[in-house]
Amino acid sequence: MKAYAMLGLGQTGWIEKERPSCGPMDAILRPIAVAPCTSDVHTVWEGAIGDRTNLVLGHEAVGEVLEVGEYVRDFKPGDICIVPAITPDWNSVEAQDGFPMHSGGMLNGWKFSNAKDGVFAEFFHVNDADGNLAILPEGMSPETATMLSDMLPTGLQASELAGVRYGDDVVVVGIGPVGLMVVRGAVLRGAARIFAVGTRRNCVEVALEYGATDIINYKNGSILDQVMALTNGKGVDKVLIAGGDVNTFDEAVRMLKPGGAIGNVNYLGSGDYIKIPRVEWGVGMGHKMINAGLMLGGRRRMERLAAMVMAGRVDPSKLLTHRFEGFDTIEEALFLMRDKPADLIKPVVSIAW
Amino acid sequence: MKAYAMLGLGQTGWIEKERPSCGPMDAILRPIAVAPCTSDVHTVWEGAIGDRTNLVLGHEAVGEVLEVGEYVRDFKPGDICIVPAITPDWNSVEAQDGFPMHSGGMLNGWKFSNAKDGVFAEFFHVNDADGNLAILPEGMSPETATMLSDMLPTGLQASELAGVRYGDDVVVVGIGPVGLMVVRGAVLRGAARIFAVGTRRNCVEVALEYGATDIINYKNGSILDQVMALTNGKGVDKVLIAGGDVNTFDEAVRMLKPGGAIGNVNYLGSGDYIKIPRVEWGVGMGHKMINAGLMLGGRRRMERLAAMVMAGRVDPSKLLTHRFEGFDTIEEALFLMRDKPADLIKPVVSIAW
Amino acid sequence: MKAYAMLGLGQTGWIEKERPSCGPMDAILRPIAVAPCTSDVHTVWEGAIGDRTNLVLGHEAVGEVLEVGEYVRDFKPGDICIVPAITPDWNSVEAQDGFPMHSGGMLNGWKFSNAKDGVFAEFFHVNDADGNLAILPEGMSPETATMLSDMLPTGLQASELAGVRYGDDVVVVGIGPVGLMVVRGAVLRGAARIFAVGTRRNCVEVALEYGATDIINYKNGSILDQVMALTNGKGVDKVLIAGGDVNTFDEAVRMLKPGGAIGNVNYLGSGDYIKIPRVEWGVGMGHKMINAGLMLGGRRRMERLAAMVMAGRVDPSKLLTHRFEGFDTIEEALFLMRDKPADLIKPVVSIAW
Amino acid sequence: MKAYAMLGLGQTGWIEKERPSCGPMDAILRPIAVAPCTSDVHTVWEGAIGDRTNLVLGHEAVGEVLEVGEYVRDFKPGDICIVPAITPDWNSVEAQDGFPMHSGGMLNGWKFSNAKDGVFAEFFHVNDADGNLAILPEGMSPETATMLSDMLPTGLQASELAGVRYGDDVVVVGIGPVGLMVVRGAVLRGAARIFAVGTRRNCVEVALEYGATDIINYKNGSILDQVMALTNGKGVDKVLIAGGDVNTFDEAVRMLKPGGAIGNVNYLGSGDYIKIPRVEWGVGMGHKMINAGLMLGGRRRMERLAAMVMAGRVDPSKLLTHRFEGFDTIEEALFLMRDKPADLIKPVVSIAW
Repeated sequence: MKAYAMLGLGQTGWIEKERPSCGPMDAILRPIAVAPCTSDVHTVWEGAIGDRTNLVLGHEAVGEVLEVGEYVRDFKPGDICIVPAITPDWNSVEAQDGFPMHSGGMLNGWKFSNAKDGVFAEFFHVNDADGNLAILPEGMSPETATMLSDMLPTGLQASELAGVRYGDDVVVVGIGPVGLMVVRGAVLRGAARIFAVGTRRNCVEVALEYGATDIINYKNGSILDQVMALTNGKGVDKVLIAGGDVNTFDEAVRMLKPGGAIGNVNYLGSGDYIKIPRVEWGVGMGHKMINAGLMLGGRRRMERLAAMVMAGRVDPSKLLTHRFEGFDTIEEALFLMRDKPADLIKPVVSIAW
Repeated sequence: MKAYAMLGLGQTGWIEKERPSCGPMDAILRPIAVAPCTSDVHTVWEGAIGDRTNLVLGHEAVGEVLEVGEYVRDFKPGDICIVPAITPDWNSVEAQDGFPMHSGGMLNGWKFSNAKDGVFAEFFHVNDADGNLAILPEGMSPETATMLSDMLPTGLQASELAGVRYGDDVVVVGIGPVGLMVVRGAVLRGAARIFAVGTRRNCVEVALEYGATDIINYKNGSILDQVMALTNGKGVDKVLIAGGDVNTFDEAVRMLKPGGAIGNVNYLGSGDYIKIPRVEWGVGMGHKMINAGLMLGGRRRMERLAAMVMAGRVDPSKLLTHRFEGFDTIEEALFLMRDKPADLIKPVVSIAW
Repeated sequence: MKAYAMLGLGQTGWIEKERPSCGPMDAILRPIAVAPCTSDVHTVWEGAIGDRTNLVLGHEAVGEVLEVGEYVRDFKPGDICIVPAITPDWNSVEAQDGFPMHSGGMLNGWKFSNAKDGVFAEFFHVNDADGNLAILPEGMSPETATMLSDMLPTGLQASELAGVRYGDDVVVVGIGPVGLMVVRGAVLRGAARIFAVGTRRNCVEVALEYGATDIINYKNGSILDQVMALTNGKGVDKVLIAGGDVNTFDEAVRMLKPGGAIGNVNYLGSGDYIKIPRVEWGVGMGHKMINAGLMLGGRRRMERLAAMVMAGRVDPSKLLTHRFEGFDTIEEALFLMRDKPADLIKPVVSIAW
Repeated sequence: MKAYAMLGLGQTGWIEKERPSCGPMDAILRPIAVAPCTSDVHTVWEGAIGDRTNLVLGHEAVGEVLEVGEYVRDFKPGDICIVPAITPDWNSVEAQDGFPMHSGGMLNGWKFSNAKDGVFAEFFHVNDADGNLAILPEGMSPETATMLSDMLPTGLQASELAGVRYGDDVVVVGIGPVGLMVVRGAVLRGAARIFAVGTRRNCVEVALEYGATDIINYKNGSILDQVMALTNGKGVDKVLIAGGDVNTFDEAVRMLKPGGAIGNVNYLGSGDYIKIPRVEWGVGMGHKMINAGLMLGGRRRMERLAAMVMAGRVDPSKLLTHRFEGFDTIEEALFLMRDKPADLIKPVVSIAW
C-alpha cells in the first residue's frame, strides 16, 4: 500500500509498505479524512520520539472499516468511524487503575505513528476495535470529526486535570488548535472569566467565539503582570497550559491563588526540568496543585465528544482554516502544519475513494 | 418598619415590626430588588415549615448596606450587595465538614423567613456580613442579580450533586425557574444531550435557549418510555430533578444507566417515602447514586455566580417574565407566584428609595 | 469433567459436563481452593437469578492455569492465580466510564455461575486472562486468597461508595463475612468509631479484632435508638450496609447526619422498593447520599488486595471458620453455607490434585 | 504575663508581655501541655518567616479556657481544649472555597507565633473559639493531645493531597515526627506496602510499629535505586514527602508510576526552585500529579482526630520520647528540638497550675 512516512530525522516522503494485518480483536480501515498534527512535526523535525525509519505518520483520522477480527462485536465493514489518537489496551493494569493512556507504560496508549504505523496510509490498523472505534454520527462531517481524534479530547483534559469548577477564573496559555479547545473545555466546566494568552488574529477570533473573555498578548508585557493587573492582584483559580515550554510553569504558579491548580496538556519538547518557584508555591504548603496528562482516548470518550458536538456544545470545525482534497495532498497539509503561516489554525485532508 | 409577612397558615399581609438590630459581625440592608419564590408559597399556603405568626417573608434580594457590625471587614454602608437565600454559620462543624447549608443542623443554613425574618421588609438583617454578602458587580442589574440568591445556585447544585461530566446525557425533570437553571448548569458542566421535561410554552422556549436539546411532554406518554425511546433503550447518565414529587424517583432510577446518578434539588413537600425500585436499582448493586441537597450559599458562591453571569455563561434575566415597581407591589408579585399563570416564570420587584 | 451444579430451583448435585474451551484472550484453570458464598445459596434456594439447569456453581476460587489463549501475554500454564468473582469485559463502554462491573449491562461483569459455569468444576474458564487473573503472592495460602475473590473487594467497596474519610463515625449493618470486611475496610479508610450491628459470637469477636469499637445488638432495642444514644443524638457520618433488607435504608437515613452517606453492598433479594423517609432525608435537600454497588473485580484490584494482605493491613483468614479437604467436600461446604450454624463465618475447600 | 519568645533572629528568651485581650468570638486559654516544633526552630534559627522581635513562640498546645467572648456558644471557662496550630477565619472566601488554611492569603490560617503570639505563654489567645477549639476527650492525656495540634493533621494531609487509595504502594520520605504520622496516615487510607525513608533507630522502630513494611536507608545507595529495585522496576503509586528539600521532588517524580501522585507536607526552607524532571514527568503528559499543602486545622478536624485516637486508630504518644514538667522547662524542650539528639522524636512539656 501507499503511505506517507517519516523516512528518518527531518525527512518525509511517500513509501510503499505492506498492508497491516488484522488480529482477532482489531480492525483495518481506510482514511476518509485525516489531519496532520503538531506532534507529527515534533516527531519528524524535532526527533521527539527518536529516529525512525519509514514510520507512517498521522494519528487524526476518520475512516471506513474494511475488515474486522473474529472477536469484534460491534463494528463491521462499511462502518464510518472516528479514530482516537490514543488507542489503549483496555485490559491493562494501568487502564484498570484509571489511566488507559498509559497502558503498558507511560504514554504507551499512544500507538499511531509511534509504536506502530499511523493513519497516513491507504490502510491502517486499529487495535481493539470494540474498545477504540466510535461510529461517526449522522450529520457530522468526517472533516470536523478528525478534530475529535486529538484536538478536542486533549483540550478537555486540561480542565479535568485542573478540576475547573463553577465560577473559576482561568488562564489559558496558548491558543493554537489545542489551546482553543482548552478554552471551550473550560467554558463547559463552568469557568467564569477566561484569560486567553495568544496573538495570532485567527486564533484570537476563535478564542473569543469559544468563550474567552480577555485576550492577553505577551507583546504587551509579562503575562504574569497582566493577569495580576486584570484580577486586582488576586490571581486566578486555574492555569491551563497548552503552549509555551518548561519555563511557563514558573509564571503559572505565581499567578495562581492558593488552592489553585495547573492543568498541562502541552508536550514539553526540551529542557531538563520544569521549575516550580519555591516561595510562590507556598514553601511547599500552598495547595497549588500541578497536574499534567495525555488525552483520554478510546471508544467511549469519542462517543461522548461526538454527543457534545451533536448537541451543539462545541463546534470544532472552527479550527479548520485550510482544507485539502485527495490522499496526495497529505504532504502539503503536513508542510503547512510545519511552516505555520499566520492564518493557520488547522488543516484537514478529505479523501474520496 | 413596614414588612410583608405570613400572618398564619394561609394568611399574609403588611405588618409593622421592629427594625432588626445588628450584631458585631452582621449587617442591616434595605432591599433594592426582591423576588418571591415558590418556597414562600410552600411556607404560607402549604405549611411547609409549620405555622408561623408575623414571620416576614422573602429570601431573594439585592440590597443596600445601611449598617455593619464592628467586626465586619469588607463591607460598608452604601455597598450594593447580592444576598444569598442561604447564609451559613461558617465556623460551624457542618460547614467545616463541607456542608455549610446544614450549619447548626439539617437545612439550618436557611435563615431568611424560616429561622428569622425575611427580606420583604424595609430593613433586613444578614448574619456574618463578611461571609454572606457579595458586591453587585458593575453592569449587572439588581433585578437580574436576585436570581443569584436562590434560582441559579439551586440549579447548579443539581449537576454538582450528580457529578455531571463531559458528554453525559442528562434528563432534567421540571423546567420552572429552578429547572431552567438546572438545564443551564448541566450545559456548563459538559452535558451533551439534555432532555428537559415540561410543557409550559415560555419555559420550553427558555429551556431551548439555555441548551436543552429535547423537550419531553408528559402528555405524550410516560416520561420513562419517551426517554428510553429517545436513547435507543440505553437510558441516560444523569437525572436532575427540579420538579415532580416523591414518586419522581421511581421513574428516574429506571431511566438511569448503571453507574448513573440522580441529583435532586426539588423540595419534596409531601409523602412519607421516596421509593427506589429494587430490581432497577440493581438489587442494591447497580451503582445508581442518589443525591439531594440544598443550595450552597454564602459570599464566595455569590461571587462565583456573579462572575459567571458577567462572563456571559448564563443570563438569568431570561427568567424574569413579570416585573413590578415599588415596595408595595410585593404582595401582587407573591400572589402571582402562588397562582402561577401559564406565562409566568418568575416575577421580580424593583424598589426605589 | 465433573462439576457441582444447580440442577434446578432448590436442587443441586454432581454432574458431568464438557470441559470449557479457551478463547484467544482466555484461560482454563483448575481450582486449588474454593469457597461457597451466600450468593450461591441465593441462586439455588431463592431463585435470585431465575431458574437454571445444570449451571455449575461457585465464584470464589484460587486456581492453577492449565491453558491460555494465543493472545494472553502475562500468564502461562502452571501459574497459581487468584480469580475474582467479577471478571469484566474491560473494553466495554461501561468499563471505560469507570464501571467495569456493569460491562455489557447492569451487573454483567458477574459471569461465574450466572452468565456461564462457575468454579466448582474440575476445570473452569476465565475470560480475558490478562485483565482478570492475578498471581497468588508467595507466602499467601490459597485458602486465604479465596477471600479476595468476593468477600474483601465487596467489603472495601462499601467505604468507597460512601466516601469514608478520616475521623468518620460509621455504622456497619451486618457482620457476616462481607460485613466483617466492611468493618476492616472502614478502618483502612480512616474511620474513627465503628458501630457494628450483629449478634453472632464468632462474628462479634472478629468484628472487634478488625476494629469495631462498639457492637450493637438488635435484641437490645432499635438499632436507630442505640446509635442515636451512643452518639448523643448526633448520628453518624456514614452507614455501610452489608445485611438486612430493603427496610434497612429507612433506619439508615434516620441515623445519618446531613452531609452523610450510605454505602450498600448487600444483595437485596426481595421487596418492590427501598424506601427513603422524606422528612429525615431533608425533604430532598439533606445531602444524605445513597450509593450502592457491586464489587470491583479484575486483575488490578486483586493485585491491590493481595498487596494489602501481604503488608498485613487485613487478615482475611480470620473469616475461615470451617475448612474442608477435597473436591468432593464442596457439597458439604455449600450446605453449611446454606444452613448457617451459629459458629460459621465462612467455609473453604482445599483441593489437592 | 510571662512568655517564651523569639527576641530576634537566632535569639530566644523569657519576656514579660501584656496578657492578650479577648474579642467577642474568641477565647483566652492557659497552656496545660505544649510541644515545641521544628517550625519554631526554623522561625528562630533559620529566619523562615523573617526577623521578629519578642514574638511568643509555640503552636502546639492543650489548654484550659479562662475566658470567652460574648458570642462564643460552645465553650466556657474551665473547658480543657485541644488547640490546632492552624486557626482559620472560617468565613473567608478561601475557607468557603475549601482552603481554610489559606484564609486571608496563602498560609495565613497559621497565626500562632507568626501573625500573633504563640502558646508558650501564661495566657494565649484563640481566634474564633467555636470554630477552632475542640474539647479534650475524657481519657486522652493532654500530652498525647498536643500531637493533634500539628503532627497528626500534617501527617494525614499528605495522604489526602496524594489521594492514597486501597492497595497503593507508597514511599514516605522522612520519618521524623511528621513523617511517622504520614506513615500512619497512609495505613489509614488503605496503603499496601509502605517504604519509609529514614535512619534514626527510634524513628525506624516507630515507623515499623505504625505500619511501614520496608525501611530505606539513604546510606545504602540512592533512594530511587532502592525503591525501583524493591518494586521490580515498577515504581510506586504515591510518594509522600515529609523530609528532604527542594531536590527531593526530582527523585520522587522518577520513582512514580504514570498516574501516580506526590503529596508534600514538608516545609521547604531554601532553594529557588523545585525541579521536576521533564522526561520522567512524561514530557508533560505522564499524569504524575504534584500536590503540596499546609495542614487542615480548626475545630472539626481536631474532633475527627481525637475520635480516631480514642478509637485506637493511631497512638500519637509513640512520638513522645522526651517529657518535661513545668512551664520553665519550655526552653530546654525547645533547645532539644533544635539540637535533635539521635534518640529524639518529639519532646512535650506538661504544665501544672
